[in-house]
Amino acid sequence: MIPPGLLPEGFRDRLPPQADASARLVRRVLDTAALHGYERVSPPLAEFEAGLVGRLKSAKAQDLLRVVDPLSQRTLALRPDITAQVGRIAATRMAHHPRPVRLSYAGPVLKLKASQLRPERELMQVGAELIGLDSVAAASEIVMVAIEALERAGVAGITLDFTLPDLVDTLAGGPLPMDPAQTEAVKTLLDAKDAGGLAAKDALAFLPLVEAAGPFETALARLRAFDMGGALTSRLDALEQIAAPLKGRVTLTLDPTERHGFEYQSWFGFSLFAAGVSGEIGRGGSYAIAHEDGREEPAIGFSLYCDPLVDAGIGARERRRLFIPFGTDPAISAKIRADGWVTVAALTASDSAEAQICSHVLRDGVAVPV
Amino acid sequence: MIPPGLLPEGFRDRLPPQADASARLVRRVLDTAALHGYERVSPPLAEFEAGLVGRLKSAKAQDLLRVVDPLSQRTLALRPDITAQVGRIAATRMAHHPRPVRLSYAGPVLKLKASQLRPERELMQVGAELIGLDSVAAASEIVMVAIEALERAGVAGITLDFTLPDLVDTLAGGPLPMDPAQTEAVKTLLDAKDAGGLAAKDALAFLPLVEAAGPFETALARLRAFDMGGALTSRLDALEQIAAPLKGRVTLTLDPTERHGFEYQSWFGFSLFAAGVSGEIGRGGSYAIAHEDGREEPAIGFSLYCDPLVDAGIGARERRRLFIPFGTDPAISAKIRADGWVTVAALTASDSAEAQICSHVLRDGVAVPV
Repeated sequence: MIPPGLLPEGFRDRLPPQADASARLVRRVLDTAALHGYERVSPPLAEFEAGLVGRLKSAKAQDLLRVVDPLSQRTLALRPDITAQVGRIAATRMAHHPRPVRLSYAGPVLKLKASQLRPERELMQVGAELIGLDSVAAASEIVMVAIEALERAGVAGITLDFTLPDLVDTLAGGPLPMDPAQTEAVKTLLDAKDAGGLAAKDALAFLPLVEAAGPFETALARLRAFDMGGALTSRLDALEQIAAPLKGRVTLTLDPTERHGFEYQSWFGFSLFAAGVSGEIGRGGSYAIAHEDGREEPAIGFSLYCDPLVDAGIGARERRRLFIPFGTDPAISAKIRADGWVTVAALTASDSAEAQICSHVLRDGVAVPV
Repeated sequence: MIPPGLLPEGFRDRLPPQADASARLVRRVLDTAALHGYERVSPPLAEFEAGLVGRLKSAKAQDLLRVVDPLSQRTLALRPDITAQVGRIAATRMAHHPRPVRLSYAGPVLKLKASQLRPERELMQVGAELIGLDSVAAASEIVMVAIEALERAGVAGITLDFTLPDLVDTLAGGPLPMDPAQTEAVKTLLDAKDAGGLAAKDALAFLPLVEAAGPFETALARLRAFDMGGALTSRLDALEQIAAPLKGRVTLTLDPTERHGFEYQSWFGFSLFAAGVSGEIGRGGSYAIAHEDGREEPAIGFSLYCDPLVDAGIGARERRRLFIPFGTDPAISAKIRADGWVTVAALTASDSAEAQICSHVLRDGVAVPV
């Protein structure tokens, strides 16, 4: 029925050297976060569906792969995102830990359906969250850690696209008052960059926001010109501060009304792209974590997805492998490994450096290129 | 209904510093295997149930957590073991790769039920497989890599318990002939070390095998005395060769009829234990991989389970964190990180080294213990 070796749609094996490349990317990101004081948490792959759904934000309940658990007589769900789990930890087991608390994570996430952009249903997610603050200083740190992590992972040509997720709400609550229904309609029209729709909704006042999208400096200048009432000044100043140390290091853009996937974020959001990699490679922003007492705690973080990077060949490394001829004293191989060599021992007299895909072979105690 | 923060039975969060300790253990094992030429593969978390069940050996179909997949209209199963997946890869996508091929892996595995010894249903499995050979040289390499990996991970007081999984079959096919039904009965009695049962089954000839269990040298001498027909000589010679370089490095024992979990293994098996850690921490042995053309390919490997090690406090590391006072020039922190320090930046004037659980604080450009 099912041919041996066939995997379900959206699932795949990573073979050498891609599996090594993926692991290396994850390590570089976690190591970078660790250097900035982020400590690892490892939430489980499955949780009670009801509990997980309550904390999901960008992922929806209908996106979940469900597990029948005869043990608990309940439905479990496989996590589609780790951020929600980190929020749960921050709000429960680590609720009494001093703030801000810096946490990092890495692991597979599972989705019911693939998207058009990403055929995978299992993805490797890695990221860091700063919980207890969502200030400009917090945003600067998170953006810096994300960029530094990507650079250490060998990602070049990075583009950082800023957005202001609560921009329309801020304007609607101040200089451009609207009722909630119209606010939602305007958000959708802005997301679609639909000028005609804005006109039909009598909301042409928002049109400059569409035109403000583009290279960071230009877009920011346009928003400053638009910001006559001063309702956006603090946000624009914040973006300028966050962007300042990144100029010349990454390409900066600003799409103030970009909304897809940022629905749950508060004042600040960003997407990451890289030259030669299709689609977004990561995103982040500020958000709120719900505590049991009803309190909402500010937080900010980023998530990276390693699979598009691996597929683009990032993280690959030259295979340096030293073939150890049959019968060589194991003490010699051990000494060579201590020098950092990967050794591949012949276990039969007929084995060869070629069969073992080795770059070098040991001859008279010396590594000789094949 | 379900209190927030409650996880399903057998699932748990790893918090700092245990999550870091677990990740460190996994890295050390994979890095050790990599130095010996083992390259990483990453099979998916879920497969078609039918395909996965066909390759499972020690894990059983009834142990699987199943996922309803509306997309494929089929039942998927979450992997309870990665070895079976590595076997699938070796038999399909890597079937034409030259042999032997060395592969390593690490990732979570999921079980329907916890066992009495292990309450967890999600475990971190890490290991290495050598495919294409199950010779004494292959067994020696696999055992050495496992021991070296544990040592590098900081595991002390290692005990290696050898077993001979096909011992009874070998004897039944030679000096102590039996029909298959009696062979199975004898195996079960030996597993239970049931001398009375062996007598009742007219199988007292096997009793010396029970008495041979114990410290390696003594047990081996007893088996050599028992091995009058010479049917076991090559196996006993093999064990002696594998054990030789490990003497004085780890505690060696031999339980020739130990069978639990070794049902699918061929001539060679071993279990690993560590001082201060309850239960087995890993196991390995020789087995056969089924190819699509009906061919069976020899293989040998080991798997380690990191959770009991983390629970026993192994992999923990002193927390060296340098608090960077509010307003410090980011270039100074970057320079200190380049020296290998973990820095924790104050993002508000009120933050403190104590709140951030820092061991050191930066004063006048120098790290001072708190």
